[in-house]
Amino acid sequence: MIIAITMGDPYGIGPEVIIKSLSDSRIKSLAGYLILGSKEAMDWTAGRLGIDWQPRLVSHPQEAPEGEISLLDDLEFEWDERSVGKAVAEGGAAAAHWIVLATEFNLDDRCAAMVTAPISKEALWKSGHRFQGHTEFLAHLTDTPRVVMMLVGGGLRVALVTTHTALKNVPSLITKPGILHTISITNESLIRLWGIERPRIAVCALNPHAGEGGLFGEEEAREIAPAIEQAREQRIDCSGPYPADTILHRVHKGEFDAVVAMYHDQGLVALKLIAFETGVNVTLGLPIIRTSPDHGTAYDIAGKSLADPRSMKEAIKLAASMARRKSAPSPGR
Amino acid sequence: MIIAITMGDPYGIGPEVIIKSLSDSRIKSLAGYLILGSKEAMDWTAGRLGIDWQPRLVSHPQEAPEGEISLLDDLEFEWDERSVGKAVAEGGAAAAHWIVLATEFNLDDRCAAMVTAPISKEALWKSGHRFQGHTEFLAHLTDTPRVVMMLVGGGLRVALVTTHTALKNVPSLITKPGILHTISITNESLIRLWGIERPRIAVCALNPHAGEGGLFGEEEAREIAPAIEQAREQRIDCSGPYPADTILHRVHKGEFDAVVAMYHDQGLVALKLIAFETGVNVTLGLPIIRTSPDHGTAYDIAGKSLADPRSMKEAIKLAASMARRKSAPSPGR
Repeated sequence: MIIAITMGDPYGIGPEVIIKSLSDSRIKSLAGYLILGSKEAMDWTAGRLGIDWQPRLVSHPQEAPEGEISLLDDLEFEWDERSVGKAVAEGGAAAAHWIVLATEFNLDDRCAAMVTAPISKEALWKSGHRFQGHTEFLAHLTDTPRVVMMLVGGGLRVALVTTHTALKNVPSLITKPGILHTISITNESLIRLWGIERPRIAVCALNPHAGEGGLFGEEEAREIAPAIEQAREQRIDCSGPYPADTILHRVHKGEFDAVVAMYHDQGLVALKLIAFETGVNVTLGLPIIRTSPDHGTAYDIAGKSLADPRSMKEAIKLAASMARRKSAPSPGR
Repeated sequence: MIIAITMGDPYGIGPEVIIKSLSDSRIKSLAGYLILGSKEAMDWTAGRLGIDWQPRLVSHPQEAPEGEISLLDDLEFEWDERSVGKAVAEGGAAAAHWIVLATEFNLDDRCAAMVTAPISKEALWKSGHRFQGHTEFLAHLTDTPRVVMMLVGGGLRVALVTTHTALKNVPSLITKPGILHTISITNESLIRLWGIERPRIAVCALNPHAGEGGLFGEEEAREIAPAIEQAREQRIDCSGPYPADTILHRVHKGEFDAVVAMYHDQGLVALKLIAFETGVNVTLGLPIIRTSPDHGTAYDIAGKSLADPRSMKEAIKLAASMARRKSAPSPGR
């Protein structure tokens, strides 16, 4: 099993968290790895870290051996130390190229999963790739009409109905089809990728106190409850809408396998509070497996050997576990 | 120092959490207590709990001795066992009466603070008192134009700019004067009631990622940042707007003394996650000190001796600590 790891923005902390993670023997032993990125960036970073870093150089994923670390650097990209910590078009273009390549390797099953180090949206946009982030880019590349962003950490799994949008747009984006879709993909992914036979899914309300019976907010009755009802008709074990403040506590205590949150901060405040350093971002609904650390390029500390690799390690562990489960013979139930 | 405790809805868990809390010698030793409520409700509850409960019966707060538990029951209220766990007008009317009484005793300094057991909005409304809850009722009774709801627990202090309103109304309620007011009252209260010399206050953004530089949401630049700037001109040590998901983690780690959240779930998801059983609701900006447990009447378990008194105990402890600080001579700086 080969897991593709994209370097992300070569001037962010991507190279550093990749090297730190793969220098951990517990991570290294999980799979074979194919890094898609700049050899220069890796060598420079390894030198700074004082880590002996000798990946096998390959030009094709088939050459990457099981149980080893390989590096594929096929770009005419000139890494420039002076750009470390900066959002430049060249970095964005390179990051985009490696994402395209890793997606291709996953779509044709040469790789079993992909883990993406962080990209800079600013650099990405400067290079002409107008995507909000990995999630939207990968949906485009794999021709997937609707994906679900899930954050995992500290025992919590949080799926989001809406993501990077202004709060004032959220209520109008909370629709029965959108919620139902999020519930369905979450359910299907928990079964297939996490091996949970009958996932218990809690669904948040949009309004405080779940709208207190319509007193403040009607989205619960009009959109969320009907979506839950329809999901239950499809034999999905989901319930709600629950007031977000109490249900996230209950999910954290283990009463549910996942929670569907209506918007970014509703779910992410909880996730970051209990798993700030170890959160993993998973894109559900893609035809491929994709995880990433739940942090950005952190330009302010790029090249300073200060980056915390824990989130990257968790992203790799989760990708490996999902890939093993996906490739295992189906239980045939 | 006498602390007034209102029974709240006599058919909820109020009587039970009051008796359980005051049976704890660590709580009992903090102050003298004057309970405003139904003797019948208390006796019935104590009997169920098997607790020997002999408060001194008084008809006036002056008769309540320091260091003892007194009960003032001045109502023609006929407590009815069959109404336990139900929202009835009689219960709402009685609860409202005790709140009015406790407020009066606090306004004229016969009591040093008030702790309110939960009321039922439904019962309150049935009795003709059309208030969203204690906070609005107390603002009305004390003629306070604007108060701030703060939740305290697990090391977090969360002040809210908006409270019980539909999420779709939140963005239009996020105004520079409202935010500035919340920051100022929070700052002033932390100094006066908590004894924090120069409070460090973090202010949340409204939008995810703090709007990512205007990409999704303009409220940060238009309302929140100017409010923070003006507060800083008033020598308040506040900063932001910060993305809510990361700042609540930082506040929890101790980097700030309090956080100002823009809306209910943004702050309460965090609070309930780390202090579900021990959260305390404090109304800031009133001319009196008022705390309450962060839970409702819990009609479903009323009269079953199952109620958890921890939140009530914390509410009493906080009220006692604030009252002591308020009555102490000012440091005169």
